[in-house]
Amino acid sequence: MADLVINRDRLLERHRLMASFGDTGNGGVIRPALSDEETAARSAILDLARERGFICSVDPIGNLFIRRNGEQGNQAPLRIGSHLDSQIPGGNFDGVYGVIAAFEVLETLEDRAISTSVPVEVVIWNNEEGARFSPTTMGSGVHAGALPLDQALAARDTNGKRVDEELARSLEKLGQLFRIGLGTESSGYIEAHIEQGPVLEASNTPIGVVTGIQGIIQLQVTVSGEEAHAGTTPRSRRRDALFTALDLIADLRALTTDPDDEVRFTVGRLSVLPGAPNTVPSNVVFTIDLRHPSEKILETIHAQIIEVAATFRTSCHIDAVTTLASPPVCFDADIRSLIETSATSLHLKSAAIASGATHDAKFMGPLCPTGMIFIPCRDGISHNEKEWAEFEHMVAGADVLLRAVSKWASPDIAN
Amino acid sequence: MADLVINRDRLLERHRLMASFGDTGNGGVIRPALSDEETAARSAILDLARERGFICSVDPIGNLFIRRNGEQGNQAPLRIGSHLDSQIPGGNFDGVYGVIAAFEVLETLEDRAISTSVPVEVVIWNNEEGARFSPTTMGSGVHAGALPLDQALAARDTNGKRVDEELARSLEKLGQLFRIGLGTESSGYIEAHIEQGPVLEASNTPIGVVTGIQGIIQLQVTVSGEEAHAGTTPRSRRRDALFTALDLIADLRALTTDPDDEVRFTVGRLSVLPGAPNTVPSNVVFTIDLRHPSEKILETIHAQIIEVAATFRTSCHIDAVTTLASPPVCFDADIRSLIETSATSLHLKSAAIASGATHDAKFMGPLCPTGMIFIPCRDGISHNEKEWAEFEHMVAGADVLLRAVSKWASPDIAN
Repeated sequence: MADLVINRDRLLERHRLMASFGDTGNGGVIRPALSDEETAARSAILDLARERGFICSVDPIGNLFIRRNGEQGNQAPLRIGSHLDSQIPGGNFDGVYGVIAAFEVLETLEDRAISTSVPVEVVIWNNEEGARFSPTTMGSGVHAGALPLDQALAARDTNGKRVDEELARSLEKLGQLFRIGLGTESSGYIEAHIEQGPVLEASNTPIGVVTGIQGIIQLQVTVSGEEAHAGTTPRSRRRDALFTALDLIADLRALTTDPDDEVRFTVGRLSVLPGAPNTVPSNVVFTIDLRHPSEKILETIHAQIIEVAATFRTSCHIDAVTTLASPPVCFDADIRSLIETSATSLHLKSAAIASGATHDAKFMGPLCPTGMIFIPCRDGISHNEKEWAEFEHMVAGADVLLRAVSKWASPDIAN
Repeated sequence: MADLVINRDRLLERHRLMASFGDTGNGGVIRPALSDEETAARSAILDLARERGFICSVDPIGNLFIRRNGEQGNQAPLRIGSHLDSQIPGGNFDGVYGVIAAFEVLETLEDRAISTSVPVEVVIWNNEEGARFSPTTMGSGVHAGALPLDQALAARDTNGKRVDEELARSLEKLGQLFRIGLGTESSGYIEAHIEQGPVLEASNTPIGVVTGIQGIIQLQVTVSGEEAHAGTTPRSRRRDALFTALDLIADLRALTTDPDDEVRFTVGRLSVLPGAPNTVPSNVVFTIDLRHPSEKILETIHAQIIEVAATFRTSCHIDAVTTLASPPVCFDADIRSLIETSATSLHLKSAAIASGATHDAKFMGPLCPTGMIFIPCRDGISHNEKEWAEFEHMVAGADVLLRAVSKWASPDIAN
């Protein structure tokens, strides 16, 4: 199987095709979950799948499954894939790369008439980004039973549109799909993705063998003070929600500034009411996103944040609520080894790496042997129109995925 | 004229009537400029005016004028008034008190058949608050030639509605009005208003003789960094627009913290893009509202703010633009004296006081002899549904206004 590699030209063609859906004209896309743009991207992949005779299905939360049958028809499939939705705006690699790499694997297996013991299925998860509907990794979370279906279907975007309505509207445009249930069994799951960080690029390593996903805690903090006239109210009489929030955030930044720069502390959203230039703000709501690979350290910092917010000296009222608490996930040793040996067989340098970002693979971890393949991205930039991965690395990642799938599902193929 | 006082019951009735337009149910109103609610309040006053035979006019920016004729028909009127629009939400005293006090003066003059040498006119300025359309004091600014009419008419609210469209829609509901030009001559201007600060209440003084209005500088600051993934991007590689903005604001707060607590430094609006919990912010825009009674100190701090923003050490780009620069205004000595002696003749304690807030009177100052009467408000709270003035103080302010108008415009009335 030394010559078992994917079709480079076709991969590039698929990449360009996907980049056309939601193209901002600035190198990125605006393709939020269940938007017309994401639906068009999903539809294009399904059209290609049907041309190849693959079997296309959808589950109740809108995850898509594209199956190439194995020798044993009813075995649980080996699943590979990622997501097509983007940040607003986002780049042309986050998520979409894992989908086109997985689909390329399916087409190459078909081109070469390589039979597999179990079916191989491309999964396109719904709403991984959470940029339009909260929470993130919604589709895989519902699939895994970690998020109730009803709750996910009732989530609304900022315009008040519900997931269920938007899903129904999207599905109408996707042609005929088999309906399958939630949480159908998988024999394994492998996801290819850009690193979204600077580590692989810095060490000139094309393949990252992902050891796991760091834990994530999200909080929403509300600061309530009192509106007052900006021209008349002396500083000493103000209950300024914004300045209080800024002082609190300053303390939390000091708390989370570690010498090794491993703690990830982000305030990504902050809104101010009433928001008039001549009125002292009465209310501020902001989010905290906190991540660390160590569950113990994460829990310690989480408790400290709650403590600082609860004991903060202020004339305002502070309320901190934890909205997400997801412990670190460790990936399957056999899958990690499979990815590593696949890279070696392709003469590609690889390195173990922890994932800073969360991924749909997080929810697959507890369900079946799971792993991820990272490829480098330029300057570690992601969630940004400037996100960029070298085509050679895209090919390398897809080749490793093909090799790993073949070894796993077609054991008669020699190394 | 020892018995020349306003009709208390009627003043209370007018106060309650006005409070019904845009009533939030929490003690305040939402009655932004040119909204249906403000139009209804304007319409109610115009109906009362027409019943009394007063002459109702409007100018091109939507300021309303309600005239009681004087002995000399064509003389420039003595104008008294304020505004009916509110913050979102606002209280039941800011602006509206000055309008009903002025209208009460007109009705009392009529009740008592007191003739005046010059016409007396109630003015209801358009869009004083600037809560819906920017800038503040739009109507008086255009009247005084300080703001171009075209620019004011083209201002849009956050829903994209333009002043000219909303003004036309509002005027349709106000019945027949004479059309007068901008900047018609005034022989004097007196505005009654709540203090919006704590000084009069603290010294138990019912009447403030306003010496002038402190200067105001407004700026808009834009901080541009780079979007990045919250889970993967180390602190050292972030160009976080929000944390940079917070550091900058912290420096500006230190700069504006004076021992006498006279500098007013407010950040009332701050928006964060893209505003996703898991994305490091790329852009922050915030406003600065800076006020001080001394022009020299105001200019010094203004220059320091510009300097700090320009030289701030950061990987982000900072841009600070001055959007409003209005020097302090000093009111007419004769009008101040007239208000003081009117209070004395009513056995009301008065004190000289500087205005922390800006008012329509600011733009009248350069046009004609101008002054303001302040009454106390509870805890100095304004721009808030809890805004409150004692009815006795409302009566006192209206009595002083009546006495001052009578002395000014009907010189045969003895003290």
